[in-house]
Amino acid sequence: MAIRLDITDPDFEARFAAFLATKREVSEEVDDAVRAILADVRQRGDAALVDLSRRFDRVELEGRLRITAEEVDRAIAAVDSATLDALTFARDRIRAHHERQKPADDRYTDALGVELGARWTAVEAVGLYVPGGTASYPSSVLMNAVPAAVAGVPRIVMVVPTPDDRLNPLVLAAARLGGVQEIYRVGGAQAVAALAYGTQTIRPVAKIVGPGNAFVAAAKRRVFGTVGIDMIAGPSEVLVIADAGNDPDWLAADLLAQAEHDTAAQAILITDASDLADAVEAAVTRQLARLPRGETAGASWRDFGAVIVVRSLDETVALADRIAAEHLELAVADPEALALRIRNAGAVFLGRHTPEVIGDYVGGSNHVLPTARSARFSSGLGVLDFMKRTSILKVGPEALRALGPAAIALARAEGLDAHARSVAIRLNL
Amino acid sequence: MAIRLDITDPDFEARFAAFLATKREVSEEVDDAVRAILADVRQRGDAALVDLSRRFDRVELEGRLRITAEEVDRAIAAVDSATLDALTFARDRIRAHHERQKPADDRYTDALGVELGARWTAVEAVGLYVPGGTASYPSSVLMNAVPAAVAGVPRIVMVVPTPDDRLNPLVLAAARLGGVQEIYRVGGAQAVAALAYGTQTIRPVAKIVGPGNAFVAAAKRRVFGTVGIDMIAGPSEVLVIADAGNDPDWLAADLLAQAEHDTAAQAILITDASDLADAVEAAVTRQLARLPRGETAGASWRDFGAVIVVRSLDETVALADRIAAEHLELAVADPEALALRIRNAGAVFLGRHTPEVIGDYVGGSNHVLPTARSARFSSGLGVLDFMKRTSILKVGPEALRALGPAAIALARAEGLDAHARSVAIRLNL
Repeated sequence: MAIRLDITDPDFEARFAAFLATKREVSEEVDDAVRAILADVRQRGDAALVDLSRRFDRVELEGRLRITAEEVDRAIAAVDSATLDALTFARDRIRAHHERQKPADDRYTDALGVELGARWTAVEAVGLYVPGGTASYPSSVLMNAVPAAVAGVPRIVMVVPTPDDRLNPLVLAAARLGGVQEIYRVGGAQAVAALAYGTQTIRPVAKIVGPGNAFVAAAKRRVFGTVGIDMIAGPSEVLVIADAGNDPDWLAADLLAQAEHDTAAQAILITDASDLADAVEAAVTRQLARLPRGETAGASWRDFGAVIVVRSLDETVALADRIAAEHLELAVADPEALALRIRNAGAVFLGRHTPEVIGDYVGGSNHVLPTARSARFSSGLGVLDFMKRTSILKVGPEALRALGPAAIALARAEGLDAHARSVAIRLNL
Repeated sequence: MAIRLDITDPDFEARFAAFLATKREVSEEVDDAVRAILADVRQRGDAALVDLSRRFDRVELEGRLRITAEEVDRAIAAVDSATLDALTFARDRIRAHHERQKPADDRYTDALGVELGARWTAVEAVGLYVPGGTASYPSSVLMNAVPAAVAGVPRIVMVVPTPDDRLNPLVLAAARLGGVQEIYRVGGAQAVAALAYGTQTIRPVAKIVGPGNAFVAAAKRRVFGTVGIDMIAGPSEVLVIADAGNDPDWLAADLLAQAEHDTAAQAILITDASDLADAVEAAVTRQLARLPRGETAGASWRDFGAVIVVRSLDETVALADRIAAEHLELAVADPEALALRIRNAGAVFLGRHTPEVIGDYVGGSNHVLPTARSARFSSGLGVLDFMKRTSILKVGPEALRALGPAAIALARAEGLDAHARSVAIRLNL
């Protein structure tokens, strides 16, 4: 059973703080292994990829690292048309939403005649890591590939392990729909190394995104600097804030949708109605019994779930900001007003008819969102993650006379005489 | 002497690739020491800060960790008015430019009646690390603090070590001008730990920015996740692309302004005029002789400088994209046309009268820029680094009927039945 807290408990603050500090992930010590793998791929290239895939994925990749367009065609042909339609529907909605995120360049001349500006350009090549096995989600392929395509990335590469030579055809369909142009059947730290350093077959990229296991996460941390990386995603979480006017079964279903992801996932309910809290707890227990992934969801709810009862919805604001949830559902009568008062959340789902699951698939917004309280300082994945801004400065002789003396004064105050000279020489000072 | 390459050399590609791969930093092995310092501060708080500052900075901080407003007042009174005016001028220009970076929220209803949007909010608290000693630059204080203030960060904290109890008064003046509200006289990994975990005196922040030595960089890497961090800055670099119509002395001054920063700094000239290349090399040698920081600049130019001669300016585009310079000066007749063709640069300085130094101080754009080829995938510091985006989704009963079936189909295809159920239960499916 999830923990139950009441804000009127004398030890509430201590228990809430302890709850916030709970670590949900056991950090595996894989760094030494990863270092060796990166060095091996860097030195031996394709040969290392083939050897490592034989060892870790029990698959022979000699001469077939790349997944051909014909293989993708065949995979798509094998997908039933209803699912393909749903995937296409999702792709179109994600694309339409992300088109709005494209940043505008800026250019202007200020009162002193100085021209300033900013120019956004797409990253030249991006690598998308896709996990194999059960965590191989076609929806995540879309969520990573579509923003890159919208950003205008000219080369989008995907890597995906094929343990025992098996691969979910939906993942290949999503790659095609998402605009991926090259796909390689390699995973783990070795795939990250190939994307960062390049091999005979795989040209290097400038940025690597996408979720992965502890090996992949450690490899991404290690190659950061050589290439850019996205955030390191932790287990998923939802915070549901609900008033008395909710169907407990709906809320229980939402909490369990989060909990079924992973035993380390987290589902939290905060409500000002303690009767509702009781009813949701009972509904969770009922629904768990008939859930195919009930064992996973049950462990998540037992170990990391929480039900918090407050006196008024006002009190939820500070708690929500401290939790800084990846997903925040506001199942209350006036969700807009509450949303405006909360600073920290990856995504907010407004009202009783907006289950978080809609955002996972077809809402159009991105489902790659900051976990583990990182919504305090970071955002979900978007078009900006695949672009970068170059600042522009243009000064003519006149404007340089206006700016120069202050630049020279500051350079001298910082003891940087060559800096001062670079300006002074142009002004005959 | 800097290396000299000519694009017509038969071994040009190999030599250019080797030049690009040159490491300019010796990575110090400080990680074990940093881990111990972080643990000590986390456990003992202020007492650890006092002990560590006594040991590393030879300063007694018991009861005086915080720098008071009166101390800042006194420091500002001690700064000469011309320098203070220059600093204020710089602050105003940086603020005006960064105001333009503030992102707009978005909210719209699509054809299916789904409401989507994005809301930008400031990070709740930011810590700014400022190095002590000779690398303690007031201009950098402004470049970090002003974008945070423009973003609307409600709490901006600065930490700065005061070795032997000495502190540059200009740094305190810049902090006041930049909108910093709390200042603590502590540095090193211990200051990063205090900002990330909090102590009795220093409340934790959500994001840490600013340059520092190897200890600070290692500490920032380690606390990443608990808090956000900015990029890890490497040694500075400039690429000057110049045609024949330049004064070699101006270009030499620009190259040396970069080189004087640090023996690991890098200055590169690419030109289509080999006579100019010769003349610039001679001018660098001449100017070096009378430069106060000539020893530093000379070592940088000797070890990491480069002069590359090409046949035409067209050939500079691909080379510039591979170098992906932090600073790119285009001292050519038509800098606008060339700038549009180059994808990778942190900042571009257009024309013969825009020395990079203007951008260091008073241009208005930010001087915290991606180094070590990371302009391929990242941008200079700006207002967005102090904000985060929450995505918004709002679906009514009608729109849910339109979206629901596709979400259910995808959830089932991914084997996530509780996901499917969370939508289906609202549609009586």
